[in-house]
Amino acid sequence: MEDDAALLVIYGKKGRPKKFLVKVKRGKVLHTHRGAIDLSSLIGKEWGCLVETSKGERVEVHRPTIADHMEKIGRVTQIIYPKDAGFMILKSGVKPGDTVIEIGTGSGAFTIALSNFLGAEGRIYSYELRKESIEIAERNIKLLRLNNVVLKHKDAKEGIDESDADAVFLDIPDPWELLPQVYERLKPNGKFVAFVPSCEQISKTVNMAREVGFGLIEVHEILDREYESDERRTRPLPMMVGHTGFIVIGRKISKEVAVKGSEEARA
Amino acid sequence: MEDDAALLVIYGKKGRPKKFLVKVKRGKVLHTHRGAIDLSSLIGKEWGCLVETSKGERVEVHRPTIADHMEKIGRVTQIIYPKDAGFMILKSGVKPGDTVIEIGTGSGAFTIALSNFLGAEGRIYSYELRKESIEIAERNIKLLRLNNVVLKHKDAKEGIDESDADAVFLDIPDPWELLPQVYERLKPNGKFVAFVPSCEQISKTVNMAREVGFGLIEVHEILDREYESDERRTRPLPMMVGHTGFIVIGRKISKEVAVKGSEEARA
Amino acid sequence: MEDDAALLVIYGKKGRPKKFLVKVKRGKVLHTHRGAIDLSSLIGKEWGCLVETSKGERVEVHRPTIADHMEKIGRVTQIIYPKDAGFMILKSGVKPGDTVIEIGTGSGAFTIALSNFLGAEGRIYSYELRKESIEIAERNIKLLRLNNVVLKHKDAKEGIDESDADAVFLDIPDPWELLPQVYERLKPNGKFVAFVPSCEQISKTVNMAREVGFGLIEVHEILDREYESDERRTRPLPMMVGHTGFIVIGRKISKEVAVKGSEEARA
Amino acid sequence: MEDDAALLVIYGKKGRPKKFLVKVKRGKVLHTHRGAIDLSSLIGKEWGCLVETSKGERVEVHRPTIADHMEKIGRVTQIIYPKDAGFMILKSGVKPGDTVIEIGTGSGAFTIALSNFLGAEGRIYSYELRKESIEIAERNIKLLRLNNVVLKHKDAKEGIDESDADAVFLDIPDPWELLPQVYERLKPNGKFVAFVPSCEQISKTVNMAREVGFGLIEVHEILDREYESDERRTRPLPMMVGHTGFIVIGRKISKEVAVKGSEEARA
Repeated sequence: MEDDAALLVIYGKKGRPKKFLVKVKRGKVLHTHRGAIDLSSLIGKEWGCLVETSKGERVEVHRPTIADHMEKIGRVTQIIYPKDAGFMILKSGVKPGDTVIEIGTGSGAFTIALSNFLGAEGRIYSYELRKESIEIAERNIKLLRLNNVVLKHKDAKEGIDESDADAVFLDIPDPWELLPQVYERLKPNGKFVAFVPSCEQISKTVNMAREVGFGLIEVHEILDREYESDERRTRPLPMMVGHTGFIVIGRKISKEVAVKGSEEARA
Repeated sequence: MEDDAALLVIYGKKGRPKKFLVKVKRGKVLHTHRGAIDLSSLIGKEWGCLVETSKGERVEVHRPTIADHMEKIGRVTQIIYPKDAGFMILKSGVKPGDTVIEIGTGSGAFTIALSNFLGAEGRIYSYELRKESIEIAERNIKLLRLNNVVLKHKDAKEGIDESDADAVFLDIPDPWELLPQVYERLKPNGKFVAFVPSCEQISKTVNMAREVGFGLIEVHEILDREYESDERRTRPLPMMVGHTGFIVIGRKISKEVAVKGSEEARA
Repeated sequence: MEDDAALLVIYGKKGRPKKFLVKVKRGKVLHTHRGAIDLSSLIGKEWGCLVETSKGERVEVHRPTIADHMEKIGRVTQIIYPKDAGFMILKSGVKPGDTVIEIGTGSGAFTIALSNFLGAEGRIYSYELRKESIEIAERNIKLLRLNNVVLKHKDAKEGIDESDADAVFLDIPDPWELLPQVYERLKPNGKFVAFVPSCEQISKTVNMAREVGFGLIEVHEILDREYESDERRTRPLPMMVGHTGFIVIGRKISKEVAVKGSEEARA
Repeated sequence: MEDDAALLVIYGKKGRPKKFLVKVKRGKVLHTHRGAIDLSSLIGKEWGCLVETSKGERVEVHRPTIADHMEKIGRVTQIIYPKDAGFMILKSGVKPGDTVIEIGTGSGAFTIALSNFLGAEGRIYSYELRKESIEIAERNIKLLRLNNVVLKHKDAKEGIDESDADAVFLDIPDPWELLPQVYERLKPNGKFVAFVPSCEQISKTVNMAREVGFGLIEVHEILDREYESDERRTRPLPMMVGHTGFIVIGRKISKEVAVKGSEEARA
C-alpha cells in the first residue's frame, strides 16, 4: 500500500475498538492515545498486517471497505447508512453494468456504495444542488478512485438530462415533486427508491407514486442492532441508532392496458 | 418476454397485493381468484405492462428482481432474507469480479443475490451437503441463467478446494468448526460472514474467530419493518418477521507483527 | 377453585405451550388434542397444581393473571396489549385509589388492567359508544369480579360527566377532538394518555395537545420481543407483533403564569 | 408544594425539553442556562403551574411521576427502565395489597415503581448486598416517602426471611442460583421475574427454572421507541436505548400430580 486509505484499528483494555481511517503517505505519523504509528513503515506491507505503535500496542491494518468509508463520512454529515444502502441496492434490482440516476448526492456516501456495486461498466449520474456537498462528494469519489460516477452540480427539478435509467435513487426532502419526471426518465419497469426521514414524507411519496403510475409500492425501515460477544456474555449494545430514514420503492408500470381480458383465458 | 419468469401482481379491494411468480410460456394459463390470465398473451410485451384477467381485473407484469426471487424461495425453505443479504454483501466488501466461497448453499437464495452483485467476471463456489438442497439450488440457478456459480455437492469440512477468496459466506449450523480452514482460504484481509440463528452460535463463532486470527469482528442483526400508507394513514404492518439470524463478520489479520514500534514514531 | 377462571397449559412434543382459559365448573369437561380434562376434578385444588388428561398428559393449572385475560381477549378483538398497558399505566403516574376516565372501553382489556392497578379504593369511569363492545366489556368485568369500574354506554363527545380525574386514557380514532374537554376534566397536572395506530394520528394528537395547554408531551412505541430458550439455544421467536399503536402522553399545565421572573432570582 | 420534589421543564429554541428534578425549599435558587428560578416562589403554588425565569423564559412545574424519578435515578446508576418496569409488574400478576420480595435493590428505581403499584396495604422486602446501593436506595425511598418498603442489607443467598410471597423480582447477575430458594418462598402459583442483561443469563435462568418446578416460562425484551412530532413532521428519535435487559418470568407449579387422568374424562 502507498497513497492508499487504510483503516487502523487499536483495541483498548476494554470497550470498543478505536478506528482511524488514514492515508498511508511517506513521512506521515499518526498520533493516538496508545502511541504513535509511522505511516511510512506501512508502505509495501500487505493488507491485514499487524503493526506496533511506539508504545508497543498492536494495530490491525485493514483495507477499508465501502462500508468503512461510509461510516467515516457518516460521522461528519448525515448519510444513508450501510444498513439502508445494502437493502436499497438489492431491492432496486440493479446489477453490474446498469445505469442509474441519483438525486441528492449529499456527501457521496451512497454514491460510493452504488459505484462499487455497478462496477466499471456501470454508470451513476448524481445530481446535487448545494456547492459544499458537491465538494465533499468530489473529494470522497477521488479518494476512492471511482470512474463510473458523473457528478452534476444542478437542480434536478430543472431537468434530468439522462433517460432509460434502470433505477433512480432520491435522497432529497421532497422526492414526490420529482416523481413525474423520474417516471419519464426510467426504462420500462425501472425502479425509484426514495429515502425520507419522516412519516409525512412517506405518505406524500407513496401517494404521488401511485398517481404517477408506479406499481408494487413498498415502504421499509431497516434497523441494525449490534451485539457484543466474548467468552462470558453476548448482548446487544446499550445504545443504537434508532432512526435514519424510511425507504419507499416503486416500479414503473405503463399507463395503458396491453392485453384486454382475452377469450382464451375466459374459456 | 418469453420463457422468462414474470411477477404478476393483482390488487384486491383491500389488503396487500397478491403476487404470482410464473414462467411465461406458450399455451399456459394462470388461474387466480380474480380471473384467469393467458400467459401466451404476454409474449413480446414490454416489462411493466398492464394486462387484464378474464374478469377484467388489472394485473401488473413486473420483471422479477433478485429480491422477488428470494422472497418466493423463502416461502418454501428457510433462507437468508433480502434485509440480511444486502447488508452481508455490503459489509463483506466484495465488488463485481470478485471470487467468493459460500458454505451452505441451501435453496440458493443468497447464492443468486451474490451472483447478481459479482457480475459476469465474478465467481461463486458454493458448497452444499444435502442432496435435496443442491437440486433446489440448481433449479433456481438455471431459472435465473446464472453463469458465475459453481455448485459443489460436497462437505466443506472435508476440504475447501479454492483459495485466495475475497470473502467466505457461511450459512451452516456450526460455522466455527470451519473458521480455521476458512482463514487459510482467504486472501490477506479477506472477510468471513456467518449467518446464525441463535445467541449460542454467535458466541462460539466470535470466540473461534478471535482465536484463529480474525480482526474487527462485528455482530449485527438486521430488522425490516414494513409500513402501509394511503391517503388516510401511514403505519407499520401489524405482523413482522421478528427474527431470521445474526450476522457475524471478521477480517483476516496476519499472525505476525510486520512493523515493530519504530524509532521514528517514538521521536 | 370453583366457578373461577383457570388457565390450563399443555406442552406438546415441541413448539409452544397450548393455553386454555376456562371456567372451572361442576360437570364440565375440556376436550383437547392431548386428551380430556374433567374440570370438576379441579374443584378444591390449589392454584399451580398439576393434573393429568385422560391420555395421561400433564397439565399445569394456573390462576390467570390480568395479562392472561388480556391475551385471551386480544385473540378475539383488537386491544391494548400488555406491553403497552404496563407502560401507559406507569407513565400516567396513577396509583392505587386514584380516579381515572377511559374513553373507548372496547372489549375492556385495558379496563381490567387499570382496575387491577387502582385497587378497591380506585375508580374507573369508562365510556363506550358501541353496544356490542359494551356487552363484551361487561362480560369481561363480571368474569373478573371488578368492583371499581363504572361502564357508561355514551358518546364522550356529548359530555364527560366526571371531573378532577387523575388521568384520562383515550383509545378512540380521533382523540384530538376530545382533548379540550379532557383538559377541563383533569386535576391540575393530570395526564392524558392516548393510544393511536397511525402516524397521522400522532401528529394531530400532539398538535392539539400543545394548543389546548398540555406540557411535556411524549410519544412512545413499545415493542415486545419474545425469545425461546432451552439447553441448546436461545433466540427471538421468528414472528412478532410488529405494531399495535403509538402512545401519546401529555400533562395539564395551567394557562397563566403564576410567578413572573422575580427580582430575587435576578440577583 | 413545599419540601416536595418538583420537575421543572424548560423548552429551548429547538431540541428536546430540558428537565430539572429539584426539591422546592425556602431560600433555594435554581440556576439554568435560560435564567434563574427562585424556588421559594413556588411554595403554595399548584402543580402544573407556569413560572418565569429571571430571563423571562417560561418554565412548567410538574409533580414528578414515578417514571420521572426512575429516569433521574437512571442517569446516575444502571436501573430497570420504565419500559421494563411496567411490563414486569403487569406480567407478575401483582395487585395492590400484595407482598413481594425484591432481590437486588440497586438504587431503588424498580423498588419505587413496585411501592407505588402495591399501595399502602402492600409490602416490599428488598434485599441488597452492597452498602453504597443500600444508601442510595434509602435516600430515594425517603425522598418519595414510601411506607411499604423494608430494605434489607443482606445477601439473599444466605437466606430469604419471608415466605408466601405473591412474586419475587430478581435483578442480580446470577438469578438462577436463587431460584430453588425462591420456589420455596413463593405462594402456590406465585411468580418469579428476573431481569438479566445477556443471552447466557437467559439460558441459565430458564433452564434452572424448569428444573426447579416453574411452569409457563416466558422470555421477553421490551423496546421503547420515542418519536418527535410537530406541525411539519413525525419521526422516531435518531438515537435510542438499544438494550437494557431481558425479562424471564415463571410461575410456581406443585411437584406432584394432584389429579390423575380420571375415568369420567375418559368417557
